[in-house]
Amino acid sequence: MVGIDPSWADLPPEFRSSHDSAAAAYEAFGQSIIQMAAERVAVVKFQMAFFEAAGVEGLQTLYWLAEFARQQGLLVVFDGKRSDIGNTATAYAGAYLGTERQWACDALTVNPYLGEEGLTPFVDVAQHSGTGIFVLVRTSNPGAGRLQDALIEGRPVYRIVADWVRKAANETKGTSNYSSVGAVVGATTPQQLSELRRQLPNSVLLIPGYGAQGGSAADCAAAFDEQGLGAVVNNSRGIMYAWKKPEYAGKHWLDASRLSLDAMIEDLRAVAPLK
Amino acid sequence: MVGIDPSWADLPPEFRSSHDSAAAAYEAFGQSIIQMAAERVAVVKFQMAFFEAAGVEGLQTLYWLAEFARQQGLLVVFDGKRSDIGNTATAYAGAYLGTERQWACDALTVNPYLGEEGLTPFVDVAQHSGTGIFVLVRTSNPGAGRLQDALIEGRPVYRIVADWVRKAANETKGTSNYSSVGAVVGATTPQQLSELRRQLPNSVLLIPGYGAQGGSAADCAAAFDEQGLGAVVNNSRGIMYAWKKPEYAGKHWLDASRLSLDAMIEDLRAVAPLK
Repeated sequence: MVGIDPSWADLPPEFRSSHDSAAAAYEAFGQSIIQMAAERVAVVKFQMAFFEAAGVEGLQTLYWLAEFARQQGLLVVFDGKRSDIGNTATAYAGAYLGTERQWACDALTVNPYLGEEGLTPFVDVAQHSGTGIFVLVRTSNPGAGRLQDALIEGRPVYRIVADWVRKAANETKGTSNYSSVGAVVGATTPQQLSELRRQLPNSVLLIPGYGAQGGSAADCAAAFDEQGLGAVVNNSRGIMYAWKKPEYAGKHWLDASRLSLDAMIEDLRAVAPLK
Repeated sequence: MVGIDPSWADLPPEFRSSHDSAAAAYEAFGQSIIQMAAERVAVVKFQMAFFEAAGVEGLQTLYWLAEFARQQGLLVVFDGKRSDIGNTATAYAGAYLGTERQWACDALTVNPYLGEEGLTPFVDVAQHSGTGIFVLVRTSNPGAGRLQDALIEGRPVYRIVADWVRKAANETKGTSNYSSVGAVVGATTPQQLSELRRQLPNSVLLIPGYGAQGGSAADCAAAFDEQGLGAVVNNSRGIMYAWKKPEYAGKHWLDASRLSLDAMIEDLRAVAPLK
């Protein structure tokens, strides 16, 4: 999975000098990254925050890039970490996952703080439309554990959330044994990744934290099932801004991104060969 | 506080018949509600989900209605329950709270599942720009307690989150004793509301759950300080869709909304007189 997290300050200089607005620059930059990614990976993930930061024009760019990614044959994840309850959760689910959705989105990330009932509208809509959700179970930030690892009657919070995911995934699983309901689990906590692979046999795991956040391919290995399936590993800044890495000094930014992505694919293939 | 949660199915029929798109109908409907509210209350809250569900055009409507609300002298809260970490959290904060933000937003609701460090970028940006956040502490949905009330070393999750809010609020409080960092606490749990009023002396409390979700004015009373300040009580559907209530049968929809809002204000004034 390639993450599209456009940030004005990190864009290759040619985009900053040739576009009047952040949104226009993100569109041109994102299109190049997506074309390159479409030849190599199955999924792109748009980090919604960066588009929202560019205002309505930024969201118009998100709309267009998502359509473009789908035209290129990619699956599209919107990383919005949405959460709410009742009819508001249903509105978010309808927005990004419903059969009449306005966005070219195949899956959405969802935050579980409002409880299992806050997830249900997303699960129901996703199952009905053939889309998916990834519930934040154990995130990759250093301080995530303060709440997520805390023990409730001897069981960490992230495993309680994983219980909700397991149940919903089991109820929505398809013939492949995988379901509409996945989980976000950071590559930065390999031990928990391994536990959660076992606890969530019907969930695709979305793994952030590879690369820029310090997770290695070896850390991701436990996310895959015995066939080498069941997980998508995200890399955003490590691909988009590879041109800033010393090892790609002097290369065109897009060549740096391509080389960085090829290196990641090779790296992951070594730990999770397809069977 | 009046909540703007536009839903196509609930719009007064005149809007559904005279507009081609949901976004256009929401704009006309929202403008009327905002004009009426501006004469009576200090704050409006936009539920972002309903605008996102109408696609880019819906977000253009959100943009325009927020500008309009501010022109009418209202403070504007975006209820987006955003959450992320590091530079992504900073992007959300910049989008809605930063000095160069693209949206006419004065405060944003924020979800704490990613830990105290996920809140910090929002706190920092809000303090710098004179905007604010409301952190979800104890939400008003029936199943919220499953996670939020669970005990960690004898202390409920919502109080741990409240500890983070208390600390950030204490560090950012102004001369009024209130700070940039508020908390969302449902009117549906009056006992917890009372506890949290004491635990969070420097936080304005945003109280959902009045009206449609079953909270009464008496349930909200504990949210106010001794001067009758320190809380904003939200009502969305109870105002916007008052025309559907039996007691307003036969009235114009806007008259029904006005009467319903006046009744709410009177109801709250009885439990929280200004001193």
